[in-house]
Amino acid sequence: MQDIDKAYIAGFLDGDGSIMAQLVHRKDYKLGYQIRVSIVFYQKTVHQEFLFWLKEQLEIGYIRQRPDGMSEYCLVGLAEVRFVLELLSPYLHLKQELALAVLGLIKNHPPQRKMTPQKLVELAKLVDESARFNYSKKRTRTSKDVVQFLQEKHLISPVET
Amino acid sequence: MQDIDKAYIAGFLDGDGSIMAQLVHRKDYKLGYQIRVSIVFYQKTVHQEFLFWLKEQLEIGYIRQRPDGMSEYCLVGLAEVRFVLELLSPYLHLKQELALAVLGLIKNHPPQRKMTPQKLVELAKLVDESARFNYSKKRTRTSKDVVQFLQEKHLISPVET
Repeated sequence: MQDIDKAYIAGFLDGDGSIMAQLVHRKDYKLGYQIRVSIVFYQKTVHQEFLFWLKEQLEIGYIRQRPDGMSEYCLVGLAEVRFVLELLSPYLHLKQELALAVLGLIKNHPPQRKMTPQKLVELAKLVDESARFNYSKKRTRTSKDVVQFLQEKHLISPVET
Repeated sequence: MQDIDKAYIAGFLDGDGSIMAQLVHRKDYKLGYQIRVSIVFYQKTVHQEFLFWLKEQLEIGYIRQRPDGMSEYCLVGLAEVRFVLELLSPYLHLKQELALAVLGLIKNHPPQRKMTPQKLVELAKLVDESARFNYSKKRTRTSKDVVQFLQEKHLISPVET
């Protein structure tokens, strides 16, 4: 991929894309929460060929058609998001701080089977921090929810946080 | 300006900017209509320093704060818009056709003092055409309004259009 294509996609992401780190409650997870990272590009479904062009450049992710006439090109998960952010972050302006915060979070994230309650709380706080740069999104879960869950399940003691 | 900066700004313009050609009714114009071309970049006023960075790159235009908490970086007029479109159009994807249509219009536009009714109608039709690519904007005036005005003022005869 050429530098001008990376710069172009970074500009498009700054203008109309989103980079997110979220805490997702998962009943099938022993620790109750998953850290979900994602990058999404939007376009009206009638012009979604542009999203297919983007996907050709990045070679990963999937495109979905929303019922409201919009399409989304989604990159989800630690490996995919890390790949894209390492590619684009040098070219970002508006979302560079956010991208670096999310990259830091990803690099700190152990494989799921090695996740500990303490590590999850630490990462959940990084999710809280990254949300500071993500001024456009409403947050639902914060590290407080994670701490509360882990305490209720006696996976951490009150003093640990 | 470096190619990667041009590509970045093109990406941002594709994602969240607008390129427009409009017919503006002007009571002080003998021919009744002006062709107004513009490029606008948007950002929340709290993050308007980004728009100042953009303005430093392009070195022209002005920034205005809207009462609704948004700021706009506006490039208006034939010379300014031509300069920016010639710089960015090779890097555009979504708005490249629109940019080339507006560039064609600008190159066809004579100095205002040399404008003729026939030329104005011809250009007004190019404005109509450029609007086909500008799927996000509601149009107000079309070449039909221009023709009607010029006929009412007996500046063109019905057969000329």
